[in-house]
Amino acid sequence: MTWTAETRSQKLVVDETTGGLEGATSTYEKRLGDLEGLYLDGEAFAGRAATDAETVVYRVHDLRPSDRPGDMIVGTSTLEPGTIGDEYYMTRGHLHAIADRPEVYHCVHGHGVMLMEDADGTTDAIEMTPGTVAYVAPGWIHRSVNVGDDRFVTVFSYPADAGQDYAVIERAGGMASRVIVDDGGSWKLVPNERYTGR
Amino acid sequence: MTWTAETRSQKLVVDETTGGLEGATSTYEKRLGDLEGLYLDGEAFAGRAATDAETVVYRVHDLRPSDRPGDMIVGTSTLEPGTIGDEYYMTRGHLHAIADRPEVYHCVHGHGVMLMEDADGTTDAIEMTPGTVAYVAPGWIHRSVNVGDDRFVTVFSYPADAGQDYAVIERAGGMASRVIVDDGGSWKLVPNERYTGR
Repeated sequence: MTWTAETRSQKLVVDETTGGLEGATSTYEKRLGDLEGLYLDGEAFAGRAATDAETVVYRVHDLRPSDRPGDMIVGTSTLEPGTIGDEYYMTRGHLHAIADRPEVYHCVHGHGVMLMEDADGTTDAIEMTPGTVAYVAPGWIHRSVNVGDDRFVTVFSYPADAGQDYAVIERAGGMASRVIVDDGGSWKLVPNERYTGR
Repeated sequence: MTWTAETRSQKLVVDETTGGLEGATSTYEKRLGDLEGLYLDGEAFAGRAATDAETVVYRVHDLRPSDRPGDMIVGTSTLEPGTIGDEYYMTRGHLHAIADRPEVYHCVHGHGVMLMEDADGTTDAIEMTPGTVAYVAPGWIHRSVNVGDDRFVTVFSYPADAGQDYAVIERAGGMASRVIVDDGGSWKLVPNERYTGR
Protein backbone atom coordinates (compact mmCIF):
# COMPACT_ATOMS: atom_id res chain seq x y z
CA MET A 1 0.00 0.00 0.00
CA THR A 2 1.70 3.16 -1.14
CA TRP A 3 -1.27 5.45 -1.26
CA THR A 4 -4.69 5.88 0.26
CA ALA A 5 -8.10 6.97 -0.98
CA GLU A 6 -9.86 8.70 1.88
CA THR A 7 -12.96 9.92 0.09
CA ARG A 8 -15.44 8.39 -2.32
CA SER A 9 -15.97 9.41 -5.90
CA GLN A 10 -19.24 11.12 -6.73
CA LYS A 11 -21.69 11.05 -9.58
CA LEU A 12 -23.31 14.37 -10.45
CA VAL A 13 -25.91 15.06 -13.12
CA VAL A 14 -26.16 18.42 -14.85
CA ASP A 15 -29.53 19.66 -16.10
CA GLU A 16 -28.32 21.81 -18.98
CA THR A 17 -31.51 23.85 -19.24
CA THR A 18 -32.04 24.75 -15.60
CA GLY A 19 -28.43 24.50 -14.40
CA GLY A 20 -29.53 22.05 -11.72
CA LEU A 21 -26.86 19.71 -10.38
CA GLU A 22 -28.04 16.42 -8.89
CA GLY A 23 -25.54 15.31 -6.27
CA ALA A 24 -24.39 18.82 -5.33
CA THR A 25 -23.71 19.38 -1.65
CA SER A 26 -24.05 23.15 -1.51
CA THR A 27 -26.00 25.87 -3.23
CA TYR A 28 -26.23 29.62 -3.08
CA GLU A 29 -28.20 32.17 -4.99
CA LYS A 30 -28.13 35.90 -5.51
CA ARG A 31 -31.38 37.79 -5.85
CA LEU A 32 -31.70 41.18 -7.46
CA GLY A 33 -32.00 42.84 -4.05
CA ASP A 34 -28.58 41.40 -3.06
CA LEU A 35 -26.81 43.14 -5.94
CA GLU A 36 -27.05 46.83 -5.07
CA GLY A 37 -24.02 48.73 -6.38
CA LEU A 38 -23.15 46.08 -8.95
CA TYR A 39 -24.69 47.86 -11.94
CA LEU A 40 -23.68 51.36 -13.04
CA ASP A 41 -27.22 52.65 -13.49
CA GLY A 42 -28.33 53.11 -9.89
CA GLU A 43 -31.67 54.60 -10.88
CA ALA A 44 -32.56 51.69 -13.15
CA PHE A 45 -31.50 49.29 -10.40
CA ALA A 46 -33.62 51.02 -7.76
CA GLY A 47 -36.65 50.96 -10.04
CA ARG A 48 -36.31 47.22 -10.62
CA ALA A 49 -35.40 46.41 -7.05
CA ALA A 50 -38.58 48.14 -5.83
CA THR A 51 -40.66 45.40 -7.45
CA ASP A 52 -38.27 42.53 -8.23
CA ALA A 53 -35.92 42.37 -5.24
CA GLU A 54 -36.68 38.67 -4.74
CA THR A 55 -36.02 37.69 -8.36
CA VAL A 56 -33.10 35.24 -8.60
CA VAL A 57 -30.33 36.57 -10.87
CA TYR A 58 -27.89 33.69 -10.46
CA ARG A 59 -27.43 30.41 -8.70
CA VAL A 60 -24.44 28.18 -7.98
CA HIS A 61 -24.56 24.48 -7.09
CA ASP A 62 -21.38 22.65 -6.23
CA LEU A 63 -19.62 19.65 -4.78
CA ARG A 64 -16.88 20.60 -2.32
CA PRO A 65 -15.20 17.38 -1.28
CA SER A 66 -12.58 19.28 0.76
CA ASP A 67 -10.60 22.53 0.79
CA ARG A 68 -7.30 20.67 0.72
CA PRO A 69 -4.59 21.90 -1.70
CA GLY A 70 -4.61 19.60 -4.73
CA ASP A 71 -8.32 18.73 -4.43
CA MET A 72 -10.99 20.24 -6.72
CA ILE A 73 -14.44 21.78 -6.51
CA VAL A 74 -16.91 21.24 -9.34
CA GLY A 75 -20.30 22.83 -9.91
CA THR A 76 -22.75 24.66 -12.12
CA SER A 77 -23.34 28.40 -12.47
CA THR A 78 -26.70 29.58 -13.83
CA LEU A 79 -27.24 33.22 -14.74
CA GLU A 80 -30.71 34.39 -15.77
CA PRO A 81 -31.11 36.65 -18.81
CA GLY A 82 -31.83 40.33 -18.26
CA THR A 83 -30.46 43.87 -18.10
CA ILE A 84 -30.25 46.74 -15.65
CA GLY A 85 -30.14 49.90 -17.73
CA ASP A 86 -27.85 49.03 -20.65
CA GLU A 87 -25.90 46.44 -18.68
CA TYR A 88 -26.40 42.70 -18.99
CA TYR A 89 -27.00 40.55 -15.91
CA MET A 90 -23.70 39.43 -14.43
CA THR A 91 -22.23 37.71 -11.40
CA ARG A 92 -20.36 39.72 -8.76
CA GLY A 93 -17.13 38.18 -10.01
CA HIS A 94 -14.01 37.33 -8.06
CA LEU A 95 -10.29 36.87 -7.96
CA HIS A 96 -9.28 33.71 -6.19
CA ALA A 97 -8.20 34.39 -2.60
CA ILE A 98 -5.09 32.40 -3.54
CA ALA A 99 -4.70 34.55 -6.64
CA ASP A 100 -2.62 32.13 -8.72
CA ARG A 101 -5.42 29.58 -9.02
CA PRO A 102 -7.15 29.15 -12.41
CA GLU A 103 -10.74 28.15 -13.16
CA VAL A 104 -12.33 26.19 -15.99
CA TYR A 105 -15.83 27.05 -17.24
CA HIS A 106 -17.62 24.91 -19.82
CA CYS A 107 -20.74 26.43 -21.34
CA VAL A 108 -23.62 23.96 -21.72
CA HIS A 109 -26.51 26.37 -22.38
CA GLY A 110 -27.14 29.92 -23.50
CA HIS A 111 -24.85 32.73 -24.59
CA GLY A 112 -22.49 34.53 -22.29
CA VAL A 113 -19.21 36.33 -21.87
CA MET A 114 -16.43 35.51 -19.42
CA LEU A 115 -15.14 38.99 -18.56
CA MET A 116 -11.63 38.99 -17.13
CA GLU A 117 -9.10 41.51 -15.84
CA ASP A 118 -5.54 41.18 -14.67
CA ALA A 119 -3.57 43.02 -12.01
CA ASP A 120 -2.62 45.78 -14.47
CA GLY A 121 -6.25 46.47 -15.37
CA THR A 122 -6.02 44.72 -18.75
CA THR A 123 -9.38 43.41 -19.93
CA ASP A 124 -9.94 40.08 -21.65
CA ALA A 125 -13.24 38.50 -22.71
CA ILE A 126 -14.24 35.07 -24.00
CA GLU A 127 -17.61 34.74 -25.73
CA MET A 128 -19.27 31.46 -24.83
CA THR A 129 -21.98 29.30 -26.35
CA PRO A 130 -22.59 25.56 -25.75
CA GLY A 131 -19.29 23.72 -26.22
CA THR A 132 -17.06 26.68 -25.38
CA VAL A 133 -14.57 26.13 -22.57
CA ALA A 134 -12.92 29.13 -20.92
CA TYR A 135 -9.65 28.44 -19.14
CA VAL A 136 -9.38 31.46 -16.81
CA ALA A 137 -5.66 31.77 -16.19
CA PRO A 138 -4.23 32.19 -12.69
CA GLY A 139 -4.32 35.80 -11.48
CA TRP A 140 -7.29 36.95 -13.57
CA ILE A 141 -10.37 38.47 -11.97
CA HIS A 142 -13.40 36.98 -13.70
CA ARG A 143 -17.15 37.37 -13.89
CA SER A 144 -19.87 35.73 -16.00
CA VAL A 145 -22.19 37.92 -18.06
CA ASN A 146 -25.36 36.69 -19.77
CA VAL A 147 -25.64 38.40 -23.18
CA GLY A 148 -28.38 36.10 -24.50
CA ASP A 149 -32.13 35.69 -24.18
CA ASP A 150 -31.96 32.41 -22.30
CA ARG A 151 -30.22 31.09 -19.19
CA PHE A 152 -26.43 31.02 -19.36
CA VAL A 153 -25.27 27.77 -17.77
CA THR A 154 -21.67 26.69 -17.21
CA VAL A 155 -20.03 23.71 -15.54
CA PHE A 156 -17.00 24.93 -13.60
CA SER A 157 -14.07 23.36 -11.79
CA TYR A 158 -11.27 24.94 -9.79
CA PRO A 159 -8.66 24.08 -7.16
CA ALA A 160 -10.30 23.40 -3.79
CA ASP A 161 -7.99 25.73 -1.88
CA ALA A 162 -8.56 28.73 -4.20
CA GLY A 163 -11.25 30.65 -2.31
CA GLN A 164 -12.90 33.83 -3.58
CA ASP A 165 -11.95 37.48 -3.13
CA TYR A 166 -14.95 39.64 -4.08
CA ALA A 167 -13.65 42.84 -2.47
CA VAL A 168 -10.92 43.28 -5.08
CA ILE A 169 -13.67 44.27 -7.53
CA GLU A 170 -15.69 46.43 -5.14
CA ARG A 171 -12.61 48.39 -4.03
CA ALA A 172 -11.93 49.51 -7.62
CA GLY A 173 -15.50 50.61 -8.41
CA GLY A 174 -16.04 47.44 -10.44
CA MET A 175 -14.07 46.04 -13.34
CA ALA A 176 -12.39 48.23 -15.97
CA SER A 177 -14.87 47.22 -18.66
CA ARG A 178 -18.62 46.80 -18.69
CA VAL A 179 -20.59 44.49 -20.99
CA ILE A 180 -23.55 46.40 -22.39
CA VAL A 181 -26.27 46.03 -24.99
CA ASP A 182 -25.12 46.87 -28.50
CA ASP A 183 -27.41 47.78 -31.36
CA GLY A 184 -29.36 44.81 -32.65
CA GLY A 185 -29.30 42.85 -29.40
CA SER A 186 -25.60 42.08 -29.47
CA TRP A 187 -23.04 43.11 -26.84
CA LYS A 188 -19.97 45.30 -26.58
CA LEU A 189 -17.35 46.28 -24.06
CA VAL A 190 -17.23 49.88 -22.86
CA PRO A 191 -15.01 51.50 -20.22
CA ASN A 192 -16.51 51.59 -16.74
CA GLU A 193 -16.63 55.28 -15.84
CA ARG A 194 -16.78 54.46 -12.12
CA TYR A 195 -13.57 52.39 -12.22
CA THR A 196 -10.74 53.76 -10.06
CA GLY A 197 -7.93 51.44 -11.23
CA ARG A 198 -6.07 48.59 -9.60
CA MET B 1 -0.32 45.49 -7.12
CA THR B 2 -0.64 42.50 -4.87
CA TRP B 3 -0.79 39.76 -7.48
CA THR B 4 0.30 39.02 -11.00
CA ALA B 5 -1.20 37.20 -13.98
CA GLU B 6 1.62 35.62 -15.92
CA THR B 7 -0.36 33.68 -18.48
CA ARG B 8 -3.31 34.45 -20.72
CA SER B 9 -6.70 32.87 -20.53
CA GLN B 10 -7.69 30.57 -23.37
CA LYS B 11 -10.83 29.84 -25.31
CA LEU B 12 -11.38 26.21 -26.29
CA VAL B 13 -14.23 24.76 -28.30
CA VAL B 14 -15.43 21.18 -27.83
CA ASP B 15 -16.90 19.26 -30.75
CA GLU B 16 -19.20 16.96 -28.82
CA THR B 17 -19.58 14.43 -31.62
CA THR B 18 -15.94 13.96 -32.59
CA GLY B 19 -14.32 14.96 -29.28
CA GLY B 20 -12.24 17.55 -31.13
CA LEU B 21 -10.93 20.45 -29.04
CA GLU B 22 -10.17 23.68 -30.90
CA GLY B 23 -7.43 25.52 -29.03
CA ALA B 24 -5.81 22.40 -27.57
CA THR B 25 -2.02 22.47 -27.39
CA SER B 26 -1.32 18.75 -27.24
CA THR B 27 -2.86 15.53 -28.51
CA TYR B 28 -2.12 11.87 -28.25
CA GLU B 29 -3.85 8.80 -29.51
CA LYS B 30 -3.77 5.10 -28.86
CA ARG B 31 -4.25 2.68 -31.69
CA LEU B 32 -5.32 -0.91 -31.30
CA GLY B 33 -1.76 -2.10 -31.90
CA ASP B 34 -0.55 -0.02 -28.92
CA LEU B 35 -2.84 -1.82 -26.49
CA GLU B 36 -1.45 -5.35 -26.35
CA GLY B 37 -2.00 -6.89 -22.94
CA LEU B 38 -4.81 -4.52 -22.01
CA TYR B 39 -7.63 -6.94 -22.79
CA LEU B 40 -8.02 -10.35 -21.15
CA ASP B 41 -8.75 -12.24 -24.36
CA GLY B 42 -5.31 -12.36 -25.99
CA GLU B 43 -6.49 -14.49 -28.88
CA ALA B 44 -9.31 -12.10 -29.80
CA PHE B 45 -6.87 -9.22 -29.51
CA ALA B 46 -4.30 -10.88 -31.77
CA GLY B 47 -6.95 -11.60 -34.38
CA ARG B 48 -8.08 -8.01 -34.45
CA ALA B 49 -4.59 -6.54 -34.26
CA ALA B 50 -3.58 -8.58 -37.33
CA THR B 51 -5.86 -6.45 -39.48
CA ASP B 52 -6.77 -3.38 -37.40
CA ALA B 53 -3.54 -2.43 -35.61
CA GLU B 54 -3.77 1.13 -36.94
CA THR B 55 -7.37 1.69 -35.86
CA VAL B 56 -7.58 4.52 -33.31
CA VAL B 57 -9.20 3.35 -30.06
CA TYR B 58 -8.94 6.61 -28.12
CA ARG B 59 -7.65 10.13 -28.42
CA VAL B 60 -6.90 12.87 -25.90
CA HIS B 61 -6.65 16.60 -26.67
CA ASP B 62 -5.67 19.01 -23.93
CA LEU B 63 -4.47 22.42 -22.87
CA ARG B 64 -1.53 22.26 -20.47
CA PRO B 65 -0.80 25.82 -19.44
CA SER B 66 1.86 24.69 -16.93
CA ASP B 67 2.68 21.84 -14.57
CA ARG B 68 2.78 24.18 -11.58
CA PRO B 69 0.98 23.07 -8.38
CA GLY B 70 -2.36 24.90 -8.24
CA ASP B 71 -2.72 25.19 -12.01
CA MET B 72 -5.08 22.98 -14.04
CA ILE B 73 -5.11 20.93 -17.24
CA VAL B 74 -8.31 20.69 -19.28
CA GLY B 75 -9.08 18.52 -22.29
CA THR B 76 -11.28 16.02 -24.05
CA SER B 77 -11.11 12.22 -24.08
CA THR B 78 -12.71 10.34 -26.98
CA LEU B 79 -13.10 6.58 -26.86
CA GLU B 80 -14.40 4.75 -29.92
CA PRO B 81 -17.05 2.03 -29.53
CA GLY B 82 -16.01 -1.60 -29.81
CA THR B 83 -15.13 -4.79 -28.01
CA ILE B 84 -12.22 -7.23 -27.79
CA GLY B 85 -13.73 -10.57 -26.93
CA ASP B 86 -16.42 -9.77 -24.34
CA GLU B 87 -14.62 -6.66 -23.10
CA TYR B 88 -15.60 -3.14 -24.06
CA TYR B 89 -13.03 -0.71 -25.42
CA MET B 90 -11.30 1.13 -22.59
CA THR B 91 -8.41 3.44 -21.86
CA ARG B 92 -5.25 2.15 -20.21
CA GLY B 93 -6.28 4.03 -17.07
CA HIS B 94 -4.09 5.61 -14.44
CA LEU B 95 -3.54 6.66 -10.88
CA HIS B 96 -2.17 10.15 -10.60
CA ALA B 97 1.59 10.16 -10.03
CA ILE B 98 0.79 12.47 -7.12
CA ALA B 99 -1.84 10.01 -5.94
CA ASP B 100 -3.95 12.41 -3.90
CA ARG B 101 -5.07 14.42 -6.94
CA PRO B 102 -8.68 14.09 -8.16
CA GLU B 103 -10.06 14.40 -11.68
CA VAL B 104 -13.37 15.66 -13.03
CA TYR B 105 -14.94 14.08 -16.15
CA HIS B 106 -18.06 15.53 -17.77
CA CYS B 107 -19.73 13.34 -20.39
CA VAL B 108 -20.90 15.24 -23.46
CA HIS B 109 -21.56 12.33 -25.85
CA GLY B 110 -22.17 8.60 -25.81
CA HIS B 111 -22.46 6.07 -23.02
CA GLY B 112 -19.59 5.04 -20.81
CA VAL B 113 -18.45 3.84 -17.44
CA MET B 114 -15.80 5.41 -15.23
CA LEU B 115 -14.23 2.35 -13.62
CA MET B 116 -12.33 3.09 -10.42
CA GLU B 117 -10.33 1.22 -7.81
CA ASP B 118 -8.73 2.28 -4.57
CA ALA B 119 -5.56 1.15 -2.82
CA ASP B 120 -7.39 -1.71 -1.12
CA GLY B 121 -8.67 -3.08 -4.42
CA THR B 122 -12.23 -1.80 -3.89
CA THR B 123 -14.05 -1.24 -7.18
CA ASP B 124 -16.34 1.69 -7.90
CA ALA B 125 -18.09 2.54 -11.17
CA ILE B 126 -20.04 5.55 -12.41
CA GLU B 127 -22.26 5.11 -15.46
CA MET B 128 -22.12 8.18 -17.68
CA THR B 129 -24.34 9.64 -20.38
CA PRO B 130 -24.41 13.27 -21.59
CA GLY B 131 -24.73 15.55 -18.56
CA THR B 132 -23.14 13.13 -16.09
CA VAL B 133 -20.13 14.45 -14.19
CA ALA B 134 -17.81 12.01 -12.42
CA TYR B 135 -15.71 13.44 -9.61
CA VAL B 136 -12.93 10.86 -9.31
CA ALA B 137 -11.76 11.24 -5.73
CA PRO B 138 -8.06 11.55 -4.83
CA GLY B 139 -6.31 8.20 -4.64
CA TRP B 140 -8.57 6.28 -7.03
CA ILE B 141 -7.19 4.52 -10.11
CA HIS B 142 -9.57 5.26 -12.98
CA ARG B 143 -10.20 4.24 -16.56
CA SER B 144 -12.90 5.13 -19.10
CA VAL B 145 -14.88 2.34 -20.74
CA ASN B 146 -17.18 2.78 -23.74
CA VAL B 147 -20.27 0.62 -23.23
CA GLY B 148 -22.31 2.24 -26.01
CA ASP B 149 -22.59 2.09 -29.78
CA ASP B 150 -21.26 5.58 -30.38
CA ARG B 151 -18.18 7.56 -29.35
CA PHE B 152 -17.84 8.21 -25.62
CA VAL B 153 -16.64 11.79 -25.20
CA THR B 154 -15.79 13.50 -21.91
CA VAL B 155 -14.39 16.91 -20.99
CA PHE B 156 -11.88 16.46 -18.16
CA SER B 157 -9.97 18.71 -15.81
CA TYR B 158 -7.37 17.91 -13.17
CA PRO B 159 -4.57 19.52 -11.18
CA ALA B 160 -1.61 20.39 -13.41
CA ASP B 161 0.95 18.75 -11.14
CA ALA B 162 -0.92 15.42 -10.90
CA GLY B 163 0.86 13.36 -13.57
CA GLN B 164 -0.11 9.82 -14.54
CA ASP B 165 1.04 6.47 -13.19
CA TYR B 166 0.06 3.74 -15.67
CA ALA B 167 2.34 1.05 -14.22
CA VAL B 168 0.24 0.69 -11.08
CA ILE B 169 -2.39 -1.06 -13.23
CA GLU B 170 0.01 -3.16 -15.29
CA ARG B 171 1.83 -4.42 -12.19
CA ALA B 172 -1.40 -5.90 -10.81
CA GLY B 173 -2.49 -7.63 -14.01
CA GLY B 174 -5.06 -4.91 -14.65
CA MET B 175 -7.85 -3.63 -12.44
CA ALA B 176 -9.81 -5.86 -10.08
CA SER B 177 -12.96 -5.67 -12.20
CA ARG B 178 -13.59 -5.85 -15.93
CA VAL B 179 -16.48 -4.24 -17.79
CA ILE B 180 -17.95 -6.76 -20.22
CA VAL B 181 -20.92 -7.19 -22.50
CA ASP B 182 -24.06 -8.31 -20.70
CA ASP B 183 -27.03 -9.95 -22.34
CA GLY B 184 -29.01 -7.55 -24.46
CA GLY B 185 -26.13 -5.18 -25.18
CA SER B 186 -25.83 -3.83 -21.67
CA TRP B 187 -22.73 -4.08 -19.46
CA LYS B 188 -21.72 -5.68 -16.21
CA LEU B 189 -18.74 -5.89 -13.90
CA VAL B 190 -16.97 -9.22 -13.47
CA PRO B 191 -13.83 -10.11 -11.50
CA ASN B 192 -10.62 -9.93 -13.52
CA GLU B 193 -9.16 -13.41 -13.28
CA ARG B 194 -5.69 -12.12 -14.13
CA TYR B 195 -5.68 -9.60 -11.26
CA THR B 196 -2.95 -10.20 -8.67
CA GLY B 197 -4.08 -7.66 -6.05
CA ARG B 198 -2.70 -4.33 -4.88
